[in-house]
Amino acid sequence: MSTISFARGVPAPECLPVEELADCARVALERDGRTILSYGSSSGYAPLREWIADRHGVAPERVFLTNGSLQGFVFLAQRLAPGKRVLAELPTYDRPLKILRELGSDVELLACDDEGLDPDALEQALGSGPPPAFLYLIPTFQNPSGRTLSVERRSRIVELAREHDLLVLEDDPYGLVRYEGEALPSLFELSDGEVAYSSSFSKTIAPGLRVGWFVFPEALAREIEATATATYITPVLLGQATVNEFVRRGSFEPNLERVQGLLGARRDAMLAALDQDLPGIRTTRPEGGYFLWLELGGVDASDLLVRAEEAGVTFVKGADFGGAPDTARLAFSFVSLDEIRDGVARLAAALPLSV
Amino acid sequence: MSTISFARGVPAPECLPVEELADCARVALERDGRTILSYGSSSGYAPLREWIADRHGVAPERVFLTNGSLQGFVFLAQRLAPGKRVLAELPTYDRPLKILRELGSDVELLACDDEGLDPDALEQALGSGPPPAFLYLIPTFQNPSGRTLSVERRSRIVELAREHDLLVLEDDPYGLVRYEGEALPSLFELSDGEVAYSSSFSKTIAPGLRVGWFVFPEALAREIEATATATYITPVLLGQATVNEFVRRGSFEPNLERVQGLLGARRDAMLAALDQDLPGIRTTRPEGGYFLWLELGGVDASDLLVRAEEAGVTFVKGADFGGAPDTARLAFSFVSLDEIRDGVARLAAALPLSV
Repeated sequence: MSTISFARGVPAPECLPVEELADCARVALERDGRTILSYGSSSGYAPLREWIADRHGVAPERVFLTNGSLQGFVFLAQRLAPGKRVLAELPTYDRPLKILRELGSDVELLACDDEGLDPDALEQALGSGPPPAFLYLIPTFQNPSGRTLSVERRSRIVELAREHDLLVLEDDPYGLVRYEGEALPSLFELSDGEVAYSSSFSKTIAPGLRVGWFVFPEALAREIEATATATYITPVLLGQATVNEFVRRGSFEPNLERVQGLLGARRDAMLAALDQDLPGIRTTRPEGGYFLWLELGGVDASDLLVRAEEAGVTFVKGADFGGAPDTARLAFSFVSLDEIRDGVARLAAALPLSV
Repeated sequence: MSTISFARGVPAPECLPVEELADCARVALERDGRTILSYGSSSGYAPLREWIADRHGVAPERVFLTNGSLQGFVFLAQRLAPGKRVLAELPTYDRPLKILRELGSDVELLACDDEGLDPDALEQALGSGPPPAFLYLIPTFQNPSGRTLSVERRSRIVELAREHDLLVLEDDPYGLVRYEGEALPSLFELSDGEVAYSSSFSKTIAPGLRVGWFVFPEALAREIEATATATYITPVLLGQATVNEFVRRGSFEPNLERVQGLLGARRDAMLAALDQDLPGIRTTRPEGGYFLWLELGGVDASDLLVRAEEAGVTFVKGADFGGAPDTARLAFSFVSLDEIRDGVARLAAALPLSV
């Protein structure tokens, strides 16, 4: 029996548009090879910067492309966060948390509920202690919780940021991976572009291309660009040019719809299996993204994980994201519908009591 | 009159095998797209690690691929150098120098002559002061000087490193770009693989692919891998897979010969023009690489640079690499034969006196 992984926040292989990207890479190189294959701007491939700038209604100079968005977060954190206070959600994505802690930041995780970050908790945090370097937020289909920040809270957080001159980084890799419901305005939009925004093509095209982007205030864009130059001179232009060809030929939206179909079915299957096999467990019910968040009602997730792995299924315990001991993240993005059904059954069998 | 750049240490556009790389990218994705387009090992694309490991006669686990070799240097420096003493050549490549200084390293540049780093200077440095974190060396066709470390000195430096338990990083991006003469054994080879080695495909295939590699002692490889995971999860696999296809189909050696022909002609043209127009100026006469090093006999390179740019030619002053005020680096790799002839004539016209 091979282990079923609800741990991997990775798209299922059939999400990857392999054949078309093979053609895009070839066409991009044939058309613009001398630019793509030489050193270029440390902010990335100009035609893709322009496409992204158009979508966000900003000047291309504010768009910074990097080898996956985590690399850009590292640049931002290296520049702003060492030894400083940084605010984030409780729970939050574990990699930024680790990066900030290694830089000696004092990371303060703020209370969240089903509507996402509690603005009162933010206001309270801003009212005491040293001014934070920034607030890191994943407002839509959050990793790990799957939660989405409500519109009212988005507006209030933008207002609070303005009042307190707080830099907000809105990390939005999942926003477009929506299976139902209406898209909410981003904090970036609500703030007229004052909020720094990051996203990536990892969830909408392919993670292995490692193309992340940021929209920064212009002065910050110049600073980060200097850090990028000093680190790798130029990011990998081939991945960016391949993405550019893909979006320019009109493949982005149809591919996204295809991915939404593939992953939406997985979310439905996982929720249905949980409802059937674990009716007593509270779970988020996100309209998109990759993740569900379980509240295990007092059951320790570390203990459960040991038993679950014996039963042939794995997940990530909530504590790894700063969450409570009785919480867990389940990713439905990578596994097949059959694996989802079997994996949830194994998880149910691993639970010590009917809860 | 457009400015002729002897500043850009970049391959001429005709060096880039555009059409073939377009085909390699397509073939690589068609064959192994699901691996290339997903997250993978933070040490890079396995088939290319294996090819490099074979060439160096080491286990693939010791090979670390990264988004350009400078990024790997940053990882190494972040892990070993902060607040520590680091040794390097005088002059040396400016980017590592800047990286080390920003990390708060105490960088000590050791005397060099026409045969490269003076082992006596190294021995003296090792005899006093705190033990250095590492010695950074570009022993072959050095950037900026074009100098090559002699075999005798290579052996002696390897011995000294062994005696003093000193980590040496041998940076070797230019070694294969040789126009005449016999290749020398690397320090890596002379030390039976104890020396850490780095190189890249930037000068032998194309810089925009950003594929650098390191051969580390195994424990260090694991540490650097952890840093890479925390920074970008996975490097850009598409560039690495494209390089892998290029080398696996046997294109590496023929392309290298083509590049050697194109750039060797440029080196010859620049040396001939300097001999004719600036007979009193001392220059290195490297058997390969991208750069010549001028000793201007007391003429301040900053002053000369101002006048040269007015005359329509530019270069990098030696002081930017830690060199003396009357030294300069000329790159012949990017410019055409006509530009070399005209640029050297402009440089001669800019010199204040016949020297």
